[in-house]
Formats: sequence, structure tokens, C-alpha cells
Amino acid sequence: MEEVEVAPPRAHEVRVRIICTSLCHTDVTFWRMKEFPAMFPSILGHEAIGVVESVGDHVQEVAVGDTVVPVFLPQCGECDDCLSARSNICSALPYRPGGMPRDGTTRFSLAATGEAVHSFLCVSSFAEYTVVDVAHLVKLDVVGPASLPPEKACLLSCGVTTGVGAAWKAAAVEPGSTVAVFGLGAVGLAVAQGARMRGAKRIIGVDLNPDKFEIGKKMGITDFVNPNDVAEKTVSEVIREMTGGEGADYCFECIGSVSVMAEAFQSSRSGWGKTVVLGVDGSAAPISVPSFDIMRGRSVTGSLFGGIKPKDDIPMLAQKYLDKELELDEFITHQMGFHEINRAFDLLTQGKCIRCIIWMDYGAKENGA
Amino acid sequence: MEEVEVAPPRAHEVRVRIICTSLCHTDVTFWRMKEFPAMFPSILGHEAIGVVESVGDHVQEVAVGDTVVPVFLPQCGECDDCLSARSNICSALPYRPGGMPRDGTTRFSLAATGEAVHSFLCVSSFAEYTVVDVAHLVKLDVVGPASLPPEKACLLSCGVTTGVGAAWKAAAVEPGSTVAVFGLGAVGLAVAQGARMRGAKRIIGVDLNPDKFEIGKKMGITDFVNPNDVAEKTVSEVIREMTGGEGADYCFECIGSVSVMAEAFQSSRSGWGKTVVLGVDGSAAPISVPSFDIMRGRSVTGSLFGGIKPKDDIPMLAQKYLDKELELDEFITHQMGFHEINRAFDLLTQGKCIRCIIWMDYGAKENGA
Repeated sequence: MEEVEVAPPRAHEVRVRIICTSLCHTDVTFWRMKEFPAMFPSILGHEAIGVVESVGDHVQEVAVGDTVVPVFLPQCGECDDCLSARSNICSALPYRPGGMPRDGTTRFSLAATGEAVHSFLCVSSFAEYTVVDVAHLVKLDVVGPASLPPEKACLLSCGVTTGVGAAWKAAAVEPGSTVAVFGLGAVGLAVAQGARMRGAKRIIGVDLNPDKFEIGKKMGITDFVNPNDVAEKTVSEVIREMTGGEGADYCFECIGSVSVMAEAFQSSRSGWGKTVVLGVDGSAAPISVPSFDIMRGRSVTGSLFGGIKPKDDIPMLAQKYLDKELELDEFITHQMGFHEINRAFDLLTQGKCIRCIIWMDYGAKENGA
Repeated sequence: MEEVEVAPPRAHEVRVRIICTSLCHTDVTFWRMKEFPAMFPSILGHEAIGVVESVGDHVQEVAVGDTVVPVFLPQCGECDDCLSARSNICSALPYRPGGMPRDGTTRFSLAATGEAVHSFLCVSSFAEYTVVDVAHLVKLDVVGPASLPPEKACLLSCGVTTGVGAAWKAAAVEPGSTVAVFGLGAVGLAVAQGARMRGAKRIIGVDLNPDKFEIGKKMGITDFVNPNDVAEKTVSEVIREMTGGEGADYCFECIGSVSVMAEAFQSSRSGWGKTVVLGVDGSAAPISVPSFDIMRGRSVTGSLFGGIKPKDDIPMLAQKYLDKELELDEFITHQMGFHEINRAFDLLTQGKCIRCIIWMDYGAKENGA
């Protein structure tokens, strides 16, 4: 814990008071990285919700006091990608590691020495205040203790939205389909949710941790494969056997391992099997797919944020929660105050939590703020 | 040239008198292969057109005298894949190398010794007569010297259909798109045709042979990249430069080289870029795609026969030729009699021809039969 100065927002920027934030595996991945694109010192954290504290020039979209969800992926609304229904990769504001999207500089510095502190994924939510470009903010009017509690809305800013989006947008799962989900963390469980919402009839979860099946069932997982229990066979062989020799219609890799990506592909059905890669492989190793096998009508699709356009789709997902179509409560396994954040890292790396909500003012949370 | 006995058709089979056939690179690939799935002795050839000579039991779909196009890909019409609009990979009749699809045996034997001769891709058209399963036959009523000449219809049985289908079905190219085609053989040129039919505004052809640009222009290629001329850069860098830094919306690999597949992928646009793999890599080496790069909304799709369902779609393509929407004439660069077939292999391997039509009765051809 360090005392940090947070400079006022510049043009197109907003300073946000964080209400609560949660820990995602991508934070852990970058925390462990020794080299670029990781940059230190840095303020991690990219799943959060907060309140607009002040705005810079040219900010019309939000005003002081608005409840906002910062998102690592921008939506400028004007580039070819933002204007196309096919893409969610805003091309006007490519990611600049360590800095703000428009000028690459940071708004953080150590209070004691003045040393610059890098920002992370344009969000940096492990801080009481942060500065976010308006293109990275989603205004959420429906947040409140009686409607959409902030800790639930917080989940929509990364992992859960990525998983639901992958099933809904990137894969466009068809009703009656069979789906295999590799890795039952928050993203994988959200894929199961999304697949169930789209009418999948069978959802096979794959995880080394048998504890994940119980929570998985609540999210729509119908069958469970633990790779440790099938030592004689590969997981793809087991999944093909479970599906009458064919394989799953849709396979989702939610771990970030190229060997799992290959196994997910081999579990996909010939003719139309689609493999969606959601995990980030920290080693940047290539995905390897046998050229003979892909010929038979299979495809591999990558997806960032599940194909979700933040400003268009996150309010829609919030509404789906209010309409009881989307389950969010079960993702939250732990809640704590900001001073306990290192314990949250332990819980996540030990596989003991799905999402841990970290409140900047834990007392205020108890009062339903 | 060997004298071969062609046994009568068994149940669900049809004996076909070949009118003409053409040489495709896949014939050359298998001819050069030393190991399984290549099997020798074998009768190669899988692009052809012929006339039904006799039918086995349970054959209702065609009758003696019908003009038919044999196709390496079956369409049983009843399996989950045939019943789905998403797949063209019939799952009822998986390929059995060297034999007929239903029982794996061959109808060919050497006249001199009785030794069995393997069939190839369920077609084996480098013979005056062949036996084909009815699931592998497409009846074409429109063939005739005054309408759709047989040598044009012959092209629809593999390469041209694969290419047109890849643009039309597998990729579903959108109007106004930019397309890059790697390899300007018959398949690549047909992709260009298909992309033009779908309204692509820019079609970049990539080939080492500068002669291909002239014929490419007639097929819709608007820009040409010769990898030999860009030694300082990769082809993908050149294509990104040509497209304002973005890359092509659709990339087609029509060579069968994993290094070209990787280059095609790198030439595809982030956000929605789609790479379609059409070439077969003889070495069965894996396609390798950086996991970081695929995340940004790109996809890789494999396609056999361009996603075309033979019985449904080939008659439609024949009609498109008659309606002057589909160009076929330019693909035929050479024609010869069956006794000259070895010269056709030379022409194709030397890159001197696109398609060489081989007539079983070259004299009859001269009379417009």
C-alpha cells in the first residue's frame, strides 16, 4: 500500500472515485510478468465501478456524480470498428501499455518521491481514485442498492461480460447445441451462463478442481470432466465419446494455455465446430492446429471481451440481471476491504474464489451504499 | 497407361463413362506422396464429367444416360451434417482411402494380372470408366454443347467450386470488402471470382509467378503482390500497407503451405479478419497462429470444397455460368486427349496451366459432343 497522487483529468478524461473493484486473473498474469507489456511500478486492477469525481475538457457523456463502469476496452464510437457490428476492437485508441490512451502518459505518481506510477489496462482500479478516458467508461443509470448493487455491476466490467459475450456474440451459440468450457473460473462460468441463455442443451465443464462442479451446476454446467480422472485418454477423446463420437458444437478456452487451446479444438465437431479462444497465454506461444483437421469445416476464433461493445452491451447485460435472465450473485464468493487486497490475490491464485469484491470503504458497503 | 477391369456397380453405386476430366493439384500431391493416405497402385483423378453407363441396386437418383459430375465429397442427404445448413461434411460416409465409401473395396483390377487397383477420392476419373457411389454424384441436366459444354461443367467438380464456394459460403464475403488471395491457381482464381460475385471492392492476388496477374485481372484481381519483389518486407506487411495499415477483411490460403497460412493470418484485419484455409499441406504440419494476435477478433476457418454442398450447390453454379455471372472459360488453358495425360502433369507442375482438360475421346470433343 502506497500513498499515490492522482492528477486531475485532462481533455477527454474523467477522474473516478472507485466504489469497489474485483480481482481478475489477468491482474495476476501481469503481476507475475517480468517483462513488457508488464511495467512497474504500476497500479493494477481493471474490474470496478465508481462515481465520477471530476471531468476534463470535452467530456459531455458523463457528469460529476454519475455511476460509471470503467472498461479496459475502449469504444470511441466513431472509428470503422466501432461503427461496424462485426468488431468490438476500437481502432482509434489502440492500447498503450502503462499510460493513458491518448497521450501515453500517466496520472499517477508516488506521493513520497514523485516517481511516476504506470497505469494498467487504462483502468488501474486498485486505488481510491483513478483517471479513465471517457472512451473507456460506461455510464450505468440502474445501479443502486435496491436495483443493481454496485458489487454486481462491478462484475460486468470484465470477466463475466467476457464469458457471456463469448457465448452470445463471438460464438452466437445456437439453441440445442452442445458446448464445452475449458476452465471454470469466472470467465468459464460466465460462458456457461451465456450458453444457457442462448439455449444450449448440454454444457460440459472441464476443470482440474472438482469444487468447481457444484458452482458450475448453478451456472448451467450439465456435465463435468476432470482431466485428472481421465489419465488414460485425452479430454478431447472423452468429450467425443460423450457426444456420440462427434465432439462439441462450441468449445471455449478460458485458461490461456496453448495446450488447452489445442485440446479444445480437438474437442470440436467437424462440419461446424467453433473454438473460441478467451484465455491469454502469458508466454505468447502460438496456437497450433493440425492443418488437415481444420479443413473439415472447423474454425478457431479469438475474442477480446467476448465480442462485447462496452457502451452498447454492458447496459443491456445489467438489464438482463434485473430481468433475472443473467445470474451474477453466485460469482461473488468473497468480499473484503481494500486493506486486505493481498489476501484476495492468495484466494484467487489458490483457486479458492471465483470473484472477490474489494470495497474501498467496507463500512459504507455494510450500509448498502 | 494400363488396361484395367472396371467391375459392375454394386448397391448404391453407378458406373460412369467419363467424357472428360481435368488435373488438379491434389492429384499431384497424392501422386508424389510416398505414404498413407496415398495408396498404390491407384487411379487418380477427381475432376470430371461423365454419362451413367449402368446403375446398381437402390439407385433411383440417376438413370442410364444421365450426365453426371462425380465429386470427392459425398452428400447422403440424411445425416445431421447434410441436414444442417452449417456443414457440408457428410458424416454418414467418411472417406475410406483407396476404396468405395460403403465397403472400402475397389472396383478396379489390372486386366493382365487381376491385381487390385485402389480408387482415389471416391472418383478415380483418369479412366474411361469408373464406379462412383451415388452419394458422390451430381446430376446436371443443363449440360450440352449449346448450353453448358462438358469441359466447363467438369471444372465445377472440384477446384473452381472450392474457390467460389470459399468466398461465397465459407467466408460469406461482404460487399465492399478487401480480399487477399494467396496462390493464383484454379482455386485462388476462383476465390477471386467468388469474391467479385459477392461485391468485394478490392482483391489482392499473391503469387510468385508474374504470369498469373494477367489471367487474374480477368477473374477480378485488382492488385498483385509477388513475394519475390518485396524481399525487404513480409507479404503481410505489404498488404497492411496497401490497406491503410489495417489488413484485408478476408484472406484465403490456396497453396497448402503452413508458412503461407501464417502469413495469410497476419495479413488479416483485427476486429473481424477471417482467414480461410483451402490448401492441403502435404506434410500435415500444424497451422501456427500467435495466441495474442487471434484475440483481437480474428478467426481461422478451414473449409473442404469451400463449404459447398455438392448436390444442392453445383447445379446453382452451373446456372450462374449460364446467366453469365460465373466465368469458367478462362480457367481452361489447355485441352488434350487422354493418351497425353503425362504432359498435363508436366504443365501443371511447371505452373504453365490453370486447368488442362483431358478428353477420353478427343475426336468426339472436336465434334462438340
